[in-house]
Amino acid sequence: MPEVLVTGGCGFIGSHLVDALLSQGFKVRVMDNLSNGSLENLKCGQRDKLEIINGNLTDKFLLDSAVKGCETVFHLAAHANVQNSAKDTGIDLENNTLATHNLLEAMRRNRVDRLVFASSAAVYGESGLTVLDEDYGPLLPISLYGASKLAGEGLISAYSHLYGLKATMFRFANIVGSRRHSGVIYDFVSRLRQNPSSLLVLGDGSQSKPYLHVSDCVAGMLLGFEKSTKNLGLYNLGTPDSVAVRDIACLVASEMGLKNVCYSYSGGERGWQGDAPQVRFDISRIRTLGFKPKFTSLQAVKLAIKETLKEI
Amino acid sequence: MPEVLVTGGCGFIGSHLVDALLSQGFKVRVMDNLSNGSLENLKCGQRDKLEIINGNLTDKFLLDSAVKGCETVFHLAAHANVQNSAKDTGIDLENNTLATHNLLEAMRRNRVDRLVFASSAAVYGESGLTVLDEDYGPLLPISLYGASKLAGEGLISAYSHLYGLKATMFRFANIVGSRRHSGVIYDFVSRLRQNPSSLLVLGDGSQSKPYLHVSDCVAGMLLGFEKSTKNLGLYNLGTPDSVAVRDIACLVASEMGLKNVCYSYSGGERGWQGDAPQVRFDISRIRTLGFKPKFTSLQAVKLAIKETLKEI
Ligand SMILES: NC(=O)c1ccc[n+]([C@@H]2O[C@H](COP(=O)([O-])OP(=O)(O)OC[C@H]3O[C@@H](n4cnc5c(N)ncnc54)[C@H](O)[C@@H]3O)[C@@H](O)[C@H]2O)c1
Ligand SMILES: NC(=O)c1ccc[n+]([C@@H]2O[C@H](COP(=O)([O-])OP(=O)(O)OC[C@H]3O[C@@H](n4cnc5c(N)ncnc54)[C@H](O)[C@@H]3O)[C@@H](O)[C@H]2O)c1
Repeated sequence: MPEVLVTGGCGFIGSHLVDALLSQGFKVRVMDNLSNGSLENLKCGQRDKLEIINGNLTDKFLLDSAVKGCETVFHLAAHANVQNSAKDTGIDLENNTLATHNLLEAMRRNRVDRLVFASSAAVYGESGLTVLDEDYGPLLPISLYGASKLAGEGLISAYSHLYGLKATMFRFANIVGSRRHSGVIYDFVSRLRQNPSSLLVLGDGSQSKPYLHVSDCVAGMLLGFEKSTKNLGLYNLGTPDSVAVRDIACLVASEMGLKNVCYSYSGGERGWQGDAPQVRFDISRIRTLGFKPKFTSLQAVKLAIKETLKEI
Repeated sequence: MPEVLVTGGCGFIGSHLVDALLSQGFKVRVMDNLSNGSLENLKCGQRDKLEIINGNLTDKFLLDSAVKGCETVFHLAAHANVQNSAKDTGIDLENNTLATHNLLEAMRRNRVDRLVFASSAAVYGESGLTVLDEDYGPLLPISLYGASKLAGEGLISAYSHLYGLKATMFRFANIVGSRRHSGVIYDFVSRLRQNPSSLLVLGDGSQSKPYLHVSDCVAGMLLGFEKSTKNLGLYNLGTPDSVAVRDIACLVASEMGLKNVCYSYSGGERGWQGDAPQVRFDISRIRTLGFKPKFTSLQAVKLAIKETLKEI
């Protein structure tokens, strides 16, 4: 089986992808600087087929050796926290935009021409209740994270046209499941563990978005990657429905067996600066490749709550 | 009158914009590293109201002092040559993406909150004969230049949402006129000066795009800037028609009084890698602000040929 590189493979989604690739028989290299991921995430699985390179994508030399001889790169490494980036305006630029450029250069130098990229619904910006397909425009991100993912897509698109890179780009919805240590489910669980009688919900709770379970995300990526015949494929990867944050709060409390939780709301339509309060996904395009998410948004959230409760 | 900063003000479009701003009574600072612009371009005009800072937008300290106290920044500095960028893959990243980020940071630090940005039709990628309005998607640029302009738009959009920047972004068509020392008109004139009997046309000559005269471009920018009431305005700035490269070749030869020029074609649908052979612009949005280009594409090309012939 050929060897592949997973950048960000020690992270939440990356580690699940590594598991899947290993179980399909691939030899897997991981490059991760452990800024957010952890080696714990890769403890199970066939370690003899797995090589972990602890390094930063800004390190061009290390990147060269990581890329060399690989057949495909799955590029998931990123600074993926919208809340942080409003505080440090350079962090997405460095870990997402520049890191992606570095990776593309390393691939070009080493003649590695297959790329799978984890982009995000954040490129769509504030689109309200519009059902977003991949041709939606204008693309006016409202976070620096979204801006960096758009920059990444643009770079990959140009490399594909100029240098014959074959790339599949996925715009992920909110991905949930085990090993995720951020986001709304993790936040609610942690806060209710600390104080089971009250819960602060950021925003007015009406924010509502599609949620995809990480197992569906990994399955979708692998399917899109195998089946996409285009030189440059662009796919929404999510669910066509949504769940409101207010409902997630109740689901977490109920799964924890808590009654009479007093919910308070920080107010305003969005949870934090750069957060798009409403997102709706059209997933027809990836459906034509045979993708069918196993879980609806609601099912994915419920499952992820159970998984998170086991972990923290 | 308030003071404004024009980045790239020693360049082709920038210098025309500076002329217009000075004649409207503005005090104007220019920041330009003279990598492509020249001081010659700013020789006329009221020099007492003009300050020129010779420096690179990658120099954060200089940028701070350039931005400080300005009311508005017109951001035109860029590496603007699609042909070069396929050779040096870092040049657009540095001079466009990173430079724009640096500028936005300097503006944020110094509380300058009005920005006008020169984006480009290159963000649209290969759109064929589709008439492009500002909501067109997907945005899949085919050049690193286009990718860097898309990255710039994304950054500006995020800064506008996060930090209250008021920005007007213009996607320019091909801008032509005096002081332009690159592009199809300049190339044809230079080559026919060297050898008046034959002319090599890159591509098959059927490439056809909208051309806007630089005087219309400057008028459109100033109008859009004054009239746009949105926090984030996005406008195509061009003409709704187009001219074919093959016709430009004949127009140049005819204006030079040359007969029996033997035209040869390098072949292929595009002039060079990263060149979108067909572009059509919808300019309804900027029309609603009262914009009406004085010149059609054909008139703009004819005028620019005459102007170029006087200069070289
Ligand atoms: N989780 C989601 O809901 C979601 C939604 C949309 C897109 N995405 C994208 O999916 C990808 C994976 O996200 P995740 O949720 O697993 O996040 P994560 O933070 O768990 O994983 C990202 C990994 O990248 C590593 N990393 C960060 N910067 C690096 C650098 N400069 N060099 C090397 N490694 C670096 C981190 O250590 C981490 O292990 C990211 O690209 C993210 O933007 C995630
Ligand atoms: N000319 C066109 O047809 C066209 C079309 C679409 C968009 N644009 C955009 O309009 C703007 C002006 O284009 P132009 O045709 O006048 O090009 P130009 O090259 O004549 O002007 C750009 C100016 O920016 C300066 N510059 C470049 N990098 C710099 C840096 N790092 N720091 C400081 N100064 C720097 C150059 O010296 C030059 O004077 C650019 O942003 C360009 O991308 C132009």
